[in-house]
Amino acid sequence: MTAATLYDKHRATFERAQQACRERHCWSPFPDMPNKVPDAAAAQARALAAFQAQLGRAFALEQPGTAGRLGEEVSPYTEEPLGINYPRAGVDALFAAAGPAMARWAAADATTRIGVLMEVVDRLYREEIFAVQQAMMHTAGMSPNMAYAGAGVNALDRAIEALVYAEMALAAVTPAARWERRFGEAQIALAKRYRAQPRGVAVCFTCATFATWNAWPSMMASLATGNAVIVKPHPGSVLPMAISVRTFRTVLAEAGFDPDLVTLALDSVAEPLGKVLVQHPQTAIVDFTGSARFGTWVEQHAHPAIAFTETAGCNTVVLESADDLDAALRSLATTMCMFSAQMCTSPQNVYVPRGGVATPGGRVGSEEVGARLAAAIAAVAREPKKASMILATIQAPSTLALVGQMRDDGARAGRVLLEPGAYAHPDFPRARTNTPLLVQTSPAHGELYREERFGPIGFVIECGDADDALAQATADVKRHGGLTAFLYSRDEAFIERAVDAYSAAGAQLTINLTGPMPLNFAAAYSDYHVTGLNPAGNASLTDLAFVAGRFRITQSRRPAA
Amino acid sequence: MTAATLYDKHRATFERAQQACRERHCWSPFPDMPNKVPDAAAAQARALAAFQAQLGRAFALEQPGTAGRLGEEVSPYTEEPLGINYPRAGVDALFAAAGPAMARWAAADATTRIGVLMEVVDRLYREEIFAVQQAMMHTAGMSPNMAYAGAGVNALDRAIEALVYAEMALAAVTPAARWERRFGEAQIALAKRYRAQPRGVAVCFTCATFATWNAWPSMMASLATGNAVIVKPHPGSVLPMAISVRTFRTVLAEAGFDPDLVTLALDSVAEPLGKVLVQHPQTAIVDFTGSARFGTWVEQHAHPAIAFTETAGCNTVVLESADDLDAALRSLATTMCMFSAQMCTSPQNVYVPRGGVATPGGRVGSEEVGARLAAAIAAVAREPKKASMILATIQAPSTLALVGQMRDDGARAGRVLLEPGAYAHPDFPRARTNTPLLVQTSPAHGELYREERFGPIGFVIECGDADDALAQATADVKRHGGLTAFLYSRDEAFIERAVDAYSAAGAQLTINLTGPMPLNFAAAYSDYHVTGLNPAGNASLTDLAFVAGRFRITQSRRPAA
Repeated sequence: MTAATLYDKHRATFERAQQACRERHCWSPFPDMPNKVPDAAAAQARALAAFQAQLGRAFALEQPGTAGRLGEEVSPYTEEPLGINYPRAGVDALFAAAGPAMARWAAADATTRIGVLMEVVDRLYREEIFAVQQAMMHTAGMSPNMAYAGAGVNALDRAIEALVYAEMALAAVTPAARWERRFGEAQIALAKRYRAQPRGVAVCFTCATFATWNAWPSMMASLATGNAVIVKPHPGSVLPMAISVRTFRTVLAEAGFDPDLVTLALDSVAEPLGKVLVQHPQTAIVDFTGSARFGTWVEQHAHPAIAFTETAGCNTVVLESADDLDAALRSLATTMCMFSAQMCTSPQNVYVPRGGVATPGGRVGSEEVGARLAAAIAAVAREPKKASMILATIQAPSTLALVGQMRDDGARAGRVLLEPGAYAHPDFPRARTNTPLLVQTSPAHGELYREERFGPIGFVIECGDADDALAQATADVKRHGGLTAFLYSRDEAFIERAVDAYSAAGAQLTINLTGPMPLNFAAAYSDYHVTGLNPAGNASLTDLAFVAGRFRITQSRRPAA
Repeated sequence: MTAATLYDKHRATFERAQQACRERHCWSPFPDMPNKVPDAAAAQARALAAFQAQLGRAFALEQPGTAGRLGEEVSPYTEEPLGINYPRAGVDALFAAAGPAMARWAAADATTRIGVLMEVVDRLYREEIFAVQQAMMHTAGMSPNMAYAGAGVNALDRAIEALVYAEMALAAVTPAARWERRFGEAQIALAKRYRAQPRGVAVCFTCATFATWNAWPSMMASLATGNAVIVKPHPGSVLPMAISVRTFRTVLAEAGFDPDLVTLALDSVAEPLGKVLVQHPQTAIVDFTGSARFGTWVEQHAHPAIAFTETAGCNTVVLESADDLDAALRSLATTMCMFSAQMCTSPQNVYVPRGGVATPGGRVGSEEVGARLAAAIAAVAREPKKASMILATIQAPSTLALVGQMRDDGARAGRVLLEPGAYAHPDFPRARTNTPLLVQTSPAHGELYREERFGPIGFVIECGDADDALAQATADVKRHGGLTAFLYSRDEAFIERAVDAYSAAGAQLTINLTGPMPLNFAAAYSDYHVTGLNPAGNASLTDLAFVAGRFRITQSRRPAA
């Protein structure tokens, strides 16, 4: 199938995605659970066998400039090294290959590029979705379902969403115009041509715990607008991106384009390449997902490259009143447990009025609220099967250390409501696990919670009244960052104030949600991930601003025939 | 007229502008010459009288935080101080007023804001266009026609264009959605609301020679997306922006909004405020037009604010071959003379093959080309009436000094083809004038011409062959910046190579244009001004990327009723 016909092949899906982005309703071309994939059991078995066969071996990825091999991943499920090694490329060789690769790619029609990239999405789904699932489990440490849904098909949906916005920005530029005007006695007629000129080589940094989630849409945004992409995965979570890069390269080559449009730049924890890549003279775009500290450095030092960042913050919960407080606390507990709170959207700080939370049965005091939340979390952590599905594992040993340190700090500057500890994973006896720590404290000890405490760590913060709780929460978000926010209130006027305050602070607010949906579930085509209004990131995945600057408009004009 | 009905009042014009932006043909709601304005003679006479009455007096502008008055403008036409003083505001007071002003403004519908801003455009045209004309003449030193057309109605067209793109970006965000999905056994239905949250306070820096040109579209882009704007004019060119700010404030107040959405921050050459404004903690957006040096500083130090810059570069001309070389040189000469080359789009560097330029009558040697170009420029400069209309005056005494210095440097590192000198302005005997300097040199003396030499200074650069000329020119643009570029060639293959090379370098190319249209004429709704691909600026006025990041999308979601 030629590049030109790939757009036709995927047109119906793409147009349906365009509609979803306009209307922001629920839609996906993919099954939401792994067992709904056609022939799922066999496909999963094949992927598991392939993963096991890959362990201890070289990952097959042909790309330019390979100067040795490298790999230091350890499975959070087994605490064993994966033993997979990947090509370690010379950085300059990757840039040197990417530059010339862009010329034909950028000269292709936008729809041609989008067709090829939709084929990448399709190929990742049909051929690699369970390979990605295994890879996300044994690098990030996700549960199988999250590795399929969140890091798999939902990330693919977000990739399509990025293509939709790229197409929208590109379509706003007409390719040609005739312009005619009188100057004095003369009539001047000009034929004008306009071109979407790619900005250059993009570097895409991916994080250890959720690599594909931002990587796929970022790569799509850069590629759709004509750029090349060098992927720099976290050294602890290379496999999902190596699979991704290989698939991009295969499809690009099949479609007649230079596969060096997409390459992998590997580094190690001991010898990081991040700053070299950000400040490389050929770097034109940086997409960064990772720590707030390096993210801020990227924002400050990427110039003249443009940077799109998603880092971290303290996601907040305000409990003002609730129709069913226990249902709210159950939802909150589950969400705080989800993937052991190793998500940028996990709630961390729960702000409670000192006078308690109003319920139909009267006010529930703040201490009681803390105790009930701790009990709800403990209920998740207590059952190994449930814990394994929800908490899954801990990606990095440093997270265990942080939980221990925060437990001690919390005991000093507050009260430990729930002691953390390992749980026994039913399927992987050596899995690195940890049940959540919950600490009760107050704004007097803001140093405890006014930053992201990455991992299963939560705080119940006793404030003055409900308005103080809201003011504390939104001020913390504005100053220290925050992506998501959660509110329970029966008071419509309070809700409206909270909507305004969180909009100004730049956290996406979920109100009065209970039931089985994870509170921090971010739906592609519908929810905007990150606002760019606080230190938790400067971009949104995905809106027009995420794509429109990745290409520039150049023109030529001459007297019309 | 209420704010809500202003959009209806201007809807037809706005929709026509939307069509023009899509199709990029020639259109404007305004007359292209001042004498075509209804009742022009009387209106111009009133504006002249008002300007003369304003001289030596306080400019009436009520705004917060006034702590003294200031004014140091000198007319390039009379070399006399204007003696106009303006309120000097405390910077913190302007930010303190802008913050609260944004709340109601941002909460209004996009169409309401656009209606109010279209009314500003209309008011500037109907009530102030000849006041702006006088102001641009006696601060920037423009000719009357350019002060009306380029700095007047064309800048208003670009303001409307910015509104079109702002509306496009805002319209891509639906205000509300219903989202419904099954999670396990439960059907979850969420009502979602989306909001365009302004980024915050924008600071708009305007330049001495062409203040309104970028200021109006930048202000419109920020205001349409809900932000407030603090205007920081060049101290030598305050009056056009003071008139603008007053008009914005008047219309905003009439429409029921807080006029402190738009204020003026004045500084002096001795005590500049630029860095304070860029790094103010409340600054969220910076629009900068001015020197390359400060522009680069702005780009590097604006973080966490976003910056849109237009600075300067060396605009290039490549002469490969021509059907009518003298017609080409006449157009080039006129354009190099236009407003004494004090435009960011003025051509500066003319690259000529050593073997000469092919014409139907045979090759014209590079020395002969230089001599004929010098003669064509001299012909413009020789007739005082023509010179006054085309060259106009020199805005700053420092430009005269630079011309003198470049004449001496040019004599050492090349050959002076045309000696600069004052011409006698027929209407203003004390006008600061200077006819162009033209220097012949070669790439061995690139230090002469590889940066913007602001003012009537041109270079003829003898290169190897035509491909070397193109390579030299585009490399200089990529490295040192460039906004416009000009090519004469009868060789279609060479033209295509040039189109590709200039697109990659990021200069907008005009090919084989002769006749009365200034070669560097940039048409609103049709030409994209600045590409953002080289050091001459990081933004384009106006495209989607220029507006889409000025607001962020925030959302709230809750169980649907």
